[in-house]
Amino acid sequence: MSTKSREIQLVSRPKGEPAPECFALVERDLPDPQPGQVLVRNRYISVDPYMRGRMNDVKSYLPPFQLNEAMTGGAVGTVVKSAEASLPEGTAVLSMYGWREAYVSSPIGLQVVDGSEAPLASYLGALGVTGLTAWIGLFRCASLKDGETVFVSGGAGAVGSIACQLAQLHGCRVLASAGSAEKVRFLEDELKVNYAFSYRDGEPADHLKDGAPGGIDVYFDNTGGPQLEAALWHMRPYGRIVLCGAISGYNTPVPGPRNLALAIGRRLTLRGFIVSDHLAEMPAFLAEAIPALQQGKLLNRETVVEGLENATEAFLGLLRPGDSHVGKLVVKVS
Amino acid sequence: MSTKSREIQLVSRPKGEPAPECFALVERDLPDPQPGQVLVRNRYISVDPYMRGRMNDVKSYLPPFQLNEAMTGGAVGTVVKSAEASLPEGTAVLSMYGWREAYVSSPIGLQVVDGSEAPLASYLGALGVTGLTAWIGLFRCASLKDGETVFVSGGAGAVGSIACQLAQLHGCRVLASAGSAEKVRFLEDELKVNYAFSYRDGEPADHLKDGAPGGIDVYFDNTGGPQLEAALWHMRPYGRIVLCGAISGYNTPVPGPRNLALAIGRRLTLRGFIVSDHLAEMPAFLAEAIPALQQGKLLNRETVVEGLENATEAFLGLLRPGDSHVGKLVVKVS
Repeated sequence: MSTKSREIQLVSRPKGEPAPECFALVERDLPDPQPGQVLVRNRYISVDPYMRGRMNDVKSYLPPFQLNEAMTGGAVGTVVKSAEASLPEGTAVLSMYGWREAYVSSPIGLQVVDGSEAPLASYLGALGVTGLTAWIGLFRCASLKDGETVFVSGGAGAVGSIACQLAQLHGCRVLASAGSAEKVRFLEDELKVNYAFSYRDGEPADHLKDGAPGGIDVYFDNTGGPQLEAALWHMRPYGRIVLCGAISGYNTPVPGPRNLALAIGRRLTLRGFIVSDHLAEMPAFLAEAIPALQQGKLLNRETVVEGLENATEAFLGLLRPGDSHVGKLVVKVS
Repeated sequence: MSTKSREIQLVSRPKGEPAPECFALVERDLPDPQPGQVLVRNRYISVDPYMRGRMNDVKSYLPPFQLNEAMTGGAVGTVVKSAEASLPEGTAVLSMYGWREAYVSSPIGLQVVDGSEAPLASYLGALGVTGLTAWIGLFRCASLKDGETVFVSGGAGAVGSIACQLAQLHGCRVLASAGSAEKVRFLEDELKVNYAFSYRDGEPADHLKDGAPGGIDVYFDNTGGPQLEAALWHMRPYGRIVLCGAISGYNTPVPGPRNLALAIGRRLTLRGFIVSDHLAEMPAFLAEAIPALQQGKLLNRETVVEGLENATEAFLGLLRPGDSHVGKLVVKVS
């Protein structure tokens, strides 16, 4: 007895901004799980800017998405049919089988999560790879110290909003930027960062001067582009720049920072990283994050889009300047 | 009884490429040394690209040169009159009192050097701050490992030529660039690097692909600009870029590297440094460098310009693309 599952496939590769025509919603029949397998129905899937890179046919740290196959990404779901004793029906699991309603898998690649400890979707956000990304960037790449001044671009986004909060939990002064009024309000009213601004409103460098007259110790860069250049002007000696994302250039090339040579005299370090190198640190991160979430000190702010059929538009929106999705964007698929 | 000394003063600040009119050769009368002081006659003075930055009236890691005062910089000389028992006549000393024929000083700021161990001028080059700069960059900033592939831009320059050789002494494969045929010949014939090229001849990125098909582990950046961008294309995962100098942009601004976001997926680290933070490591460096120099494994290649009156033109040339000064540029003043 087969199971119907809809999935979103990549059907053509974009040049520049992706169009809806690059994607197709396809219905497939899934076979019943064979011995040692389970059938999982996804509850939430993750939609992230880094996926733009995988749409290109270039070798990178992750292989490109294959044409005419379902895209992949973080997903949390529930086992609905089991032929594997270690994963009984009802078990909640985290996987990379996103962009689809259901899938059949062996236990390899599935991670059991505890839905009683925190809402399931939070394992895609604050308690997932998203949160770990913020934590690794701040504490492993930038060696953030309590009380330092931190600037987070894309501060209202999935990783950025966690980075802001983790820095605040460590007594840091936090500046954050975003690209819409709604996001700036979120930064001010919900995250209560010390200084929030829209990078589309005035010069980022002027905002940084206002918000951090003494300079920035750590810049958590989710955007690249003009904000990276602005941050370089305002870095303090021995400052650290974490290169986490470069969304400003994902669709179209942007100029490089003309002032990178400042890094010499100011002894700056810029470090790029990929969270998948650091998954072994997930327990250390969760030991800090779960209590903080349970005590209300760490907010897993989400934007929830309903229905797999709306995932593509949500993803395309995420890449547009001025996008209004606040926090972690998840698509509720069941 | 006073002593005549000529010195080169900065008399106006340049915009862009400095003109000879920014400098003036001025003769002064030096008083006899007071008790606790010595009169030193410089033998060699150091002329370095970093001095261009000090001609601007901007706060940086070193204060700007003052107008109508002698410029400063590395110098090695001999005590010719002493009123200080610790520094008898004939003692060779290293100082920052460059750009002048003679000076009066207390022992503070003077470092005794042993002219029997190595030629005096080598304390401005391979055995001086120049050599230490190369060593700190490679081993402290880039954590160079034996056998890695290293690219050194400005490889025929003072710091670059030492960086090439230190990397070779550690069994590394070395690529080096320069801006003139004479310098490329030096890299090939004297330093015997694995691959030398002129950055003005073809695309640097193509040269790097030819010279390091497997990619670059460490890029020692003396130039910034197009060579930094080219190196970024060819860095291997987990590569390190040492930001030591950015001579391509000292006189006129250059675009930033448009591909800096590659640092994310490739987990690159870019680190700027200033050698004066690391002077305490000089003994560790010399323990490696002095035997290497004495055994002929480390060449202190110099270009010697005769006469203080020619120092300005030598300095201006150093900043020009295609400049032909090979190795460490020193001016012999007596």
